[in-house]
Amino acid sequence: MERGNLFIISAPSGAGKTTILKRVLAAMERVVFSVSHTTRPPRPGEQNGVDYHFVDRETFKAMAQQGTFLEWAEVHGNLYGTSSRVVADVTGEGQDIILDIDIQGARQVKERQGVKGIFVFIAPPSLRVLQERLAGRATETAASIATRLSNAREEMQSIGNYDYVIVNDTLERAVEVLQSIIIAERSRNRRGLAGEPLRLVF
Amino acid sequence: MERGNLFIISAPSGAGKTTILKRVLAAMERVVFSVSHTTRPPRPGEQNGVDYHFVDRETFKAMAQQGTFLEWAEVHGNLYGTSSRVVADVTGEGQDIILDIDIQGARQVKERQGVKGIFVFIAPPSLRVLQERLAGRATETAASIATRLSNAREEMQSIGNYDYVIVNDTLERAVEVLQSIIIAERSRNRRGLAGEPLRLVF
Repeated sequence: MERGNLFIISAPSGAGKTTILKRVLAAMERVVFSVSHTTRPPRPGEQNGVDYHFVDRETFKAMAQQGTFLEWAEVHGNLYGTSSRVVADVTGEGQDIILDIDIQGARQVKERQGVKGIFVFIAPPSLRVLQERLAGRATETAASIATRLSNAREEMQSIGNYDYVIVNDTLERAVEVLQSIIIAERSRNRRGLAGEPLRLVF
Repeated sequence: MERGNLFIISAPSGAGKTTILKRVLAAMERVVFSVSHTTRPPRPGEQNGVDYHFVDRETFKAMAQQGTFLEWAEVHGNLYGTSSRVVADVTGEGQDIILDIDIQGARQVKERQGVKGIFVFIAPPSLRVLQERLAGRATETAASIATRLSNAREEMQSIGNYDYVIVNDTLERAVEVLQSIIIAERSRNRRGLAGEPLRLVF
């Protein structure tokens, strides 16, 4: 069986990543979402093992020291991490796995020896559009919008680390592009890469 | 305007390339088929400028000497070539162009300085399936089938030069994969490549 692919997807807040991912995961087979570990307390409706693996800080730190995580980061005082074993198990079963992580986490994965990821950045068409989208959210204050815009401008500087950039001008198109990337990468020629000979009967 | 991509598609005879290409070209926008020059006489129904640009041997040779062709080759005593200018014009207009050429032509394009192609190989699931498909064609003799199988085995050795390998197990899947490759490559991150900065308003 062919090994599955590891996709790393990052986007500035408000770029539409969550909606795109939900649509793609609902529409496609053989691709699953990586459930992160976090020390953040569950929000109403969030389920352990589905949305996150909720663990306390002590447990998380011990796991990190044991080398459990492919990448981990502290965001707004909470720890988030991706289990290396889950990624290896899922791709080993021939399924693709999607990691929804920020640019720091993506950089950690990129620098890992022996891990080959496909890096996808989802970008808003422009900062102006991003600002409009954030302003349309009832939960955002003027201050939080300003922070998110400033972060977005910074995050866009890391775009060079990504293999693909999806400009989310319309949701339908962005979903189609991400699906296409996942399908196309399944036919990428890996001949010559260690341990992944092309399986053709010739 | 973003530059279009250059796709080079090769396949052993009988792999299903022509049918796949027709379907993809009929279904997609912003992608055109490259019309080759040839010294082969037109077959019934073939139109000059649509199927091929039909030229005499002297004209072809003169064009080759003037550096007209991105690649050219002699196949079964006939000359076939792809005009560099057509490729530059089409991609310059933001359209993708598909070259249907054999592994020798593909190698010439790959070795060209300053030309960036995306190389796609369409493979039959196995030699046995290829043999069955060829045997199903009324036009093939036992001898021609043997030659095509032997050629196919040889062509499969060049697979390492290709970025993608589409195994044509079912037509629908192969068409979907080629469309996905074309769509995905339009979102490939070219930041850092000369003359192709990412056009985002940040």
